[in-house]
Amino acid sequence: MSINSFGHLFRVTTWGESHGPALGATVDGCPPGIAIDEAAIQHWLDRRKPGQNKYTTQRREPDAVRILSGVFEGQTTGTPVQLMIENTDQRSKDYSDIMEKFRPGHADITYWQKYGIRDYRGGGRSSARETASRVAAGGLARAALASLAPSVEIQAYMVQVGPHGIDREQFDAGQIEANPFWCPDAGAASQWADYLDGLRKSGNSVGAIVEVVARGVPAGLGAPIYGKLDTDLAAAMMSINAVKGVEIGEGMAAAALTGEDNADEIFMGNDGKPVYSSNHAGGILGGISTGQDVVVRFAVKPTSSILKTRQTITKSGQSAEIITKGRHDPCVGIRAVPVGEAMMACVILDHLLLHRGQIGGAVGETRGTIG
Amino acid sequence: MSINSFGHLFRVTTWGESHGPALGATVDGCPPGIAIDEAAIQHWLDRRKPGQNKYTTQRREPDAVRILSGVFEGQTTGTPVQLMIENTDQRSKDYSDIMEKFRPGHADITYWQKYGIRDYRGGGRSSARETASRVAAGGLARAALASLAPSVEIQAYMVQVGPHGIDREQFDAGQIEANPFWCPDAGAASQWADYLDGLRKSGNSVGAIVEVVARGVPAGLGAPIYGKLDTDLAAAMMSINAVKGVEIGEGMAAAALTGEDNADEIFMGNDGKPVYSSNHAGGILGGISTGQDVVVRFAVKPTSSILKTRQTITKSGQSAEIITKGRHDPCVGIRAVPVGEAMMACVILDHLLLHRGQIGGAVGETRGTIG
Amino acid sequence: MSINSFGHLFRVTTWGESHGPALGATVDGCPPGIAIDEAAIQHWLDRRKPGQNKYTTQRREPDAVRILSGVFEGQTTGTPVQLMIENTDQRSKDYSDIMEKFRPGHADITYWQKYGIRDYRGGGRSSARETASRVAAGGLARAALASLAPSVEIQAYMVQVGPHGIDREQFDAGQIEANPFWCPDAGAASQWADYLDGLRKSGNSVGAIVEVVARGVPAGLGAPIYGKLDTDLAAAMMSINAVKGVEIGEGMAAAALTGEDNADEIFMGNDGKPVYSSNHAGGILGGISTGQDVVVRFAVKPTSSILKTRQTITKSGQSAEIITKGRHDPCVGIRAVPVGEAMMACVILDHLLLHRGQIGGAVGETRGTIG
Amino acid sequence: MSINSFGHLFRVTTWGESHGPALGATVDGCPPGIAIDEAAIQHWLDRRKPGQNKYTTQRREPDAVRILSGVFEGQTTGTPVQLMIENTDQRSKDYSDIMEKFRPGHADITYWQKYGIRDYRGGGRSSARETASRVAAGGLARAALASLAPSVEIQAYMVQVGPHGIDREQFDAGQIEANPFWCPDAGAASQWADYLDGLRKSGNSVGAIVEVVARGVPAGLGAPIYGKLDTDLAAAMMSINAVKGVEIGEGMAAAALTGEDNADEIFMGNDGKPVYSSNHAGGILGGISTGQDVVVRFAVKPTSSILKTRQTITKSGQSAEIITKGRHDPCVGIRAVPVGEAMMACVILDHLLLHRGQIGGAVGETRGTIG
Repeated sequence: MSINSFGHLFRVTTWGESHGPALGATVDGCPPGIAIDEAAIQHWLDRRKPGQNKYTTQRREPDAVRILSGVFEGQTTGTPVQLMIENTDQRSKDYSDIMEKFRPGHADITYWQKYGIRDYRGGGRSSARETASRVAAGGLARAALASLAPSVEIQAYMVQVGPHGIDREQFDAGQIEANPFWCPDAGAASQWADYLDGLRKSGNSVGAIVEVVARGVPAGLGAPIYGKLDTDLAAAMMSINAVKGVEIGEGMAAAALTGEDNADEIFMGNDGKPVYSSNHAGGILGGISTGQDVVVRFAVKPTSSILKTRQTITKSGQSAEIITKGRHDPCVGIRAVPVGEAMMACVILDHLLLHRGQIGGAVGETRGTIG
Repeated sequence: MSINSFGHLFRVTTWGESHGPALGATVDGCPPGIAIDEAAIQHWLDRRKPGQNKYTTQRREPDAVRILSGVFEGQTTGTPVQLMIENTDQRSKDYSDIMEKFRPGHADITYWQKYGIRDYRGGGRSSARETASRVAAGGLARAALASLAPSVEIQAYMVQVGPHGIDREQFDAGQIEANPFWCPDAGAASQWADYLDGLRKSGNSVGAIVEVVARGVPAGLGAPIYGKLDTDLAAAMMSINAVKGVEIGEGMAAAALTGEDNADEIFMGNDGKPVYSSNHAGGILGGISTGQDVVVRFAVKPTSSILKTRQTITKSGQSAEIITKGRHDPCVGIRAVPVGEAMMACVILDHLLLHRGQIGGAVGETRGTIG
Repeated sequence: MSINSFGHLFRVTTWGESHGPALGATVDGCPPGIAIDEAAIQHWLDRRKPGQNKYTTQRREPDAVRILSGVFEGQTTGTPVQLMIENTDQRSKDYSDIMEKFRPGHADITYWQKYGIRDYRGGGRSSARETASRVAAGGLARAALASLAPSVEIQAYMVQVGPHGIDREQFDAGQIEANPFWCPDAGAASQWADYLDGLRKSGNSVGAIVEVVARGVPAGLGAPIYGKLDTDLAAAMMSINAVKGVEIGEGMAAAALTGEDNADEIFMGNDGKPVYSSNHAGGILGGISTGQDVVVRFAVKPTSSILKTRQTITKSGQSAEIITKGRHDPCVGIRAVPVGEAMMACVILDHLLLHRGQIGGAVGETRGTIG
Repeated sequence: MSINSFGHLFRVTTWGESHGPALGATVDGCPPGIAIDEAAIQHWLDRRKPGQNKYTTQRREPDAVRILSGVFEGQTTGTPVQLMIENTDQRSKDYSDIMEKFRPGHADITYWQKYGIRDYRGGGRSSARETASRVAAGGLARAALASLAPSVEIQAYMVQVGPHGIDREQFDAGQIEANPFWCPDAGAASQWADYLDGLRKSGNSVGAIVEVVARGVPAGLGAPIYGKLDTDLAAAMMSINAVKGVEIGEGMAAAALTGEDNADEIFMGNDGKPVYSSNHAGGILGGISTGQDVVVRFAVKPTSSILKTRQTITKSGQSAEIITKGRHDPCVGIRAVPVGEAMMACVILDHLLLHRGQIGGAVGETRGTIG
């Protein structure tokens, strides 16, 4: 089985290849009565759109979304929402090289081995272009959240490019939309610009780390043991192309902490809700949201499509050298920022619906009270 | 919805609380004709059993597994296998403290908020004791792998305790079973022993990093886009109690690499199969296994049940201090080692069955050939 | 894959064989805070229990249920509820005949062909004994309904035994518990007694039709297009052993009606809710409940384990005659009555939770108002 | 949750409304390497197409299918196949009547109650037009069956229109495609023509019974207990618009049979496979295929959109009379014939893949041998 769906109640199936006629997302389980139109989804797609600056692929596509079903007179009806994006910039080019040779570090070889057939044009289904479908679905999820849980705010940004991390002391949310890297640290953004210029000119690429934060998430979301909020977030982020690691809160660094240092102490806030001395947990305890910020980070490996000569083999088993020409990203992590937001939005919405199904009441209502 | 199942075709549902009458795993979808008995599963449970040395909880339970269904005359029949472990060491003790107060860093508060009721005895469902069910299911998965894909070998070990990592140059697989830490580096094991002695005496705890490797995994396993092999492994590991980060291959460190450095070059091996110059990918490309070792790491946070005084609140919203007495683990990561192996076994088997369903043929057979 | 689960949010997995150590139901997704104990579930199991009169199998088992998890201090906690029934009357007998020969009309041959191994003792997994697990899960579902949707009442009864149907003019609900056939027509019950006495003495068996009605079901339940309330009810009833047909409302007879006759006209009731002139629809339109009685019927074929000599083959392909001795039911449909109720309870509860997840609000609240 | 998917491994999600821009099917899990193109799917859609004779709705649409993904160079690639049909004959008309009033016997009222919003144009999502998506998906399933299990042949036909059934003695498969009713009995076809002419002129409608047969299905398909082949077929057929009853083999009539009469006796055939004296079971025992013909029947109720005046209410709760003008079907059962075939094709293929996943080997291979 090929599994192209995620989500329990808000269920997204993405479809389409990089160079086929179209791609999109079939979204089943969106609640009815959510105000939505194509422009609202287009807003999020435009943030992901390639070709916006010299640090991302120069492929230029309008990525215009069409809503084909599930919306009537400006509102969702509770039936499946079909979001379609037609592919328009399928440049006619010579694919004979990539057709025969497997790019090292790319899905070329495994798709071939598994399926015995692959749409090699632009990477086909394994192209990062698939993430446009996710961003479209995420736009719908955000609209539903705006209606059902308006306290929820989701924002992603880059915290590391290659070896260069941000300075947390310089964190300025206002900077995130002010540079091409979604970087909250102006100094780091400047450093990254120089660094990526150098890489781009040499035809190389580099990895990155993206952090996604959801604020205003109600306490109580998450379905232990195997649909924990962090479990589903880990799966959602790891499913993004090129992601190799996922962290919640302290993440891998939690290994170095003592119990005394790691446990967030609990107090009563002025609003009668629990507050915490810190957020090592990343807003999730036992797989259930605490009401603190939900914090997820993921590492994106460097694009394997580079202008550097690498050794590989052909389908017929011959040794070969390969250089991948084309319109690729020196740091594909940049375009993963809106994708991380979209996945967060889908997962949070999905768990709101699950929680409502099991616990009942208004969105975010819980059964246990404190105080 | 509470979601207590994982797996697509080999589907495991765990059930039971720490101090209830019993816990176990309902395994649906195990292929028929697999040789199995209680002793074969007990073998794996004994590796996880608490109380085996001073570095793990002193709770002593035989953790004896019973097979209640799905096995006839020593073989699985294709019907659900019920694996039950009775709880025997449910010490009668005073739970009034933990009943009223929420342990910082623990699921106490979120379970209460979500459900409005919780079995507080020993952590109830959120106890690490739940992982015994996983190890039992993993034992069955290993038996199925031994029959269907005997090339597969799964081994986990610790690579970091608190701030102390192993020296990869000193890696000796023979050491793993020779010390209480599943540590492949004798020098590190000795260092950890001293370090944990100190922590234990002071009533503190610490985190750890576990690495799980699966060798001999056939190429072609994995169901893109949302059931990728790495996606499912990330979810499986993140669902383990106290895990805060998951890495595949290079993991978070992939962010610092260039495309030139990160991509594993491909050559033809003497056996007519592709070989790779390195394994930055951790054996997975595009969500599909390459035939290299599948390498996963996960970070376990320190136990929040410690003898250190911490600030918290009670159910009625009063400030309180808490010290968690009881039989706890200074480094719960140690006991996560067999759990990581069990999850790997279940995920690999599940994907073997999925692959066979979609592609057909013998186990591990793929459609595309090279050469 | 063997699929031993049903339900979307209230998810029941049954396990166990007729002559193994135990069987039961693992119920995941039961809402928290539902008052339940073993006696409440036992109540329903006792209705299904064999050996209660001469018209059902003479196997005598207490069918005592134990709750192994998910309940604390008399209430569900939102974690999986494990319901176990130990098998006690596993008479040691000679199974050599049934081990080698396939009973005509029985699952013996197909289980053997598919799995290559089968627990032939008492039919193993294909035994009607599996339905005890369903009744136990149904007992939990009823407890949840009593708490969440107390208006719902579920009752099943027999409407036909062999060629003898009830007279609808004589329908008296008070009769249902007053005879061994759950028959609402005293005259028919008397007729059936004579008829079944004859069959039993001749070692033969006969089929039956069971009708299940759910009253007080709120309007709005059902998940079009493939999780319609009637779709899920059809699957639930067809999954019961020996069921060969399922009808909703008019059922197969709808084929003979004209549109004018079949459509239930709509009026406003005194309570401001729609009322209908009739209920040809069986309480479901477009897969969604209307608020009328939900009416399902299913046909149970005659037991194939009979004392009549029949022609069959052995595992080695030899022709053979077979007579099935043992403790069998002349009309297995009788014991299907409580099973039909249990399946109805599970499906209705499941859809209440699904509806609440998508639509929100109190149980049974809908988004559209009339008037 | 709205559930718009069916199938375990061959998973079909249909989307779209009657009068929206398009509708279609997102098919996930189709095996790779299946030869398919738009013409092959169009072939099946053309059989269902409305407006082909005076007995079906006069809506005229080309129903031209486009394959948007998952097919490359004439073969499936193992990625999702998106099948889209644009709506072209969305006549501009006055919907004010149907917008305010609920048609008796129609989903109008329940969709409104549940969702609080509905696309009333042509029935929106509840229109029989949705079944075009099923037929498209069924076309793909047939292509996969042709490749993987070429012995399988699927054919549906009508066996009853209103009160008029066929004469089984006159069954002639050659007649099925020779009349507008898919009727295997020329005499009955003639009778139905007269009968339906009368109904059509009077603005009335009538129900029907469709029988679907799959020949050449390998023994061993079906996933007990809750994914039995008959369970999944019952759900598949009951999910079709207007279906009120589903039967397997003897169906409801099994109730009237004795065990002696009902059980199909077993013999060895000349080809070393079991043969049966009869097929009361409809090719399924214990939920698993026997290798005999799989026989399913379903009853379709009469269309509720008729020219007869009926009593109903409006959204505002006022009494009203309604006559549904428009292009409707006097016997919507006629167009259900290709839909029943499509559902059968999808279910059989799905179970072939499931079986292969659990049992392994070539398609249709089983583990147990006889003889």
